[in-house]
Amino acid sequence: MEEITSIQNAKIKNYNKLKKKKERDKQGLAIIEGFHLIEEAVASGIVVEQLFMMDPSRVSEDLQSAAKECYVINQKVAEALSGTVTPQGIFAVIQKGTATAEQAKQVLILDRIQDPGNLGTLMRTADAAGLDLVVLAKGTADVYQEKVLRASQGSVFHIPTIEVEDVVEYVQNFSGPVYGTALEDAVSYHNVPSKQESFALVLGNEGQGMSEQLLAATSQNVTIPIYGQAESLNVAIAAGILMFHLKG
Amino acid sequence: MEEITSIQNAKIKNYNKLKKKKERDKQGLAIIEGFHLIEEAVASGIVVEQLFMMDPSRVSEDLQSAAKECYVINQKVAEALSGTVTPQGIFAVIQKGTATAEQAKQVLILDRIQDPGNLGTLMRTADAAGLDLVVLAKGTADVYQEKVLRASQGSVFHIPTIEVEDVVEYVQNFSGPVYGTALEDAVSYHNVPSKQESFALVLGNEGQGMSEQLLAATSQNVTIPIYGQAESLNVAIAAGILMFHLKG
Repeated sequence: MEEITSIQNAKIKNYNKLKKKKERDKQGLAIIEGFHLIEEAVASGIVVEQLFMMDPSRVSEDLQSAAKECYVINQKVAEALSGTVTPQGIFAVIQKGTATAEQAKQVLILDRIQDPGNLGTLMRTADAAGLDLVVLAKGTADVYQEKVLRASQGSVFHIPTIEVEDVVEYVQNFSGPVYGTALEDAVSYHNVPSKQESFALVLGNEGQGMSEQLLAATSQNVTIPIYGQAESLNVAIAAGILMFHLKG
Repeated sequence: MEEITSIQNAKIKNYNKLKKKKERDKQGLAIIEGFHLIEEAVASGIVVEQLFMMDPSRVSEDLQSAAKECYVINQKVAEALSGTVTPQGIFAVIQKGTATAEQAKQVLILDRIQDPGNLGTLMRTADAAGLDLVVLAKGTADVYQEKVLRASQGSVFHIPTIEVEDVVEYVQNFSGPVYGTALEDAVSYHNVPSKQESFALVLGNEGQGMSEQLLAATSQNVTIPIYGQAESLNVAIAAGILMFHLKG
């Protein structure tokens, strides 16, 4: 196995380049770190282009043979790659999933969700609820960010995502009811039927909510009644309650 | 208004002492920082013992008159008090809420929840769901930690909490069904009635779940069906779905 000892190595430099979303989008690749995430990616059928390991004897043969290319790295290189204080010494370059908007019947639409923890939890919850697709409106955080990947607990590898330039157009073409989450003319979610074959649910930005144009394009706004003194629910909690209600 | 310019001042030293849970418990006090949290505390009827301000002209008279004692501090003192990189220059010592276990009919029980973000979101969601009480089993993180207070968005001031030494005893004395969240002999939450007047819901540690003793003491385990490939739901998401189901 080839050993890489210099942080000037072209593959190491490219890994670090992939820390930027722009470069991930351009190359169609993403990077992940740590045993748990890499195992989860491989188990989910994600293509691993390159696997960098400090200690290959600690890495299962299955994991190594799942990668197109394997390299041994030293401590110095691991520190240059790692986003954490105590790197586990295993890193992978993976292919980003590809998905199309067609045929998805149960969809979560995220309109400029910013917090990586929220986004990861939303992905995990949409996966658990068995939705087909997560649509990311322009301005939503990137799901291939480290914090999102971690909070999603591998769900980024399970549920397809697409980024759309024009989310209003997507909503207008969607073949089913599109539920917005805003107060205007809203009904309680108890009045929305469960077990619908096709639906889309839109969650808006943590501070500003959904955009005006998107609000105008939805079929119906739904709310969750607040019984106590809290002003609102966390966006991922609200999405969880609504997705599981819609799934029934 | 008295001006404090030394970090050796007894009140400043005491504020810093209150960063430790042990000291908060001993004094029955807690500390909060920033306009939003302090305004929320005052609006919720929390007693403010001391208010420290860099610039009193930026602090409303209502807020100042709500505090038993007000002090002006300088930048150096503010930096010594602050837990953030860019302090807002306003700090308060508050009385911790007091609550009793009696009479609470709708209760969330947390068994060693560790992550401050999860705990804060659980408090916010329990508040929104209109529950009466949150019971913290021994080993659960402190709700008066900075990160919990922030994630709770003020709900720590709205919903009473008690810490119990013996959570099994609490559960045994509770006058209503106690729902555990574990797989053993569990039923889907769809089979648990909504709109119950009295219930307790137990959520366990993020990694280990509920303790064996607590599991043995509950009335019924409930689960949320997982339709996709996610292994589980985040604890706060699961609690949100279950609390809003029980409330109906």
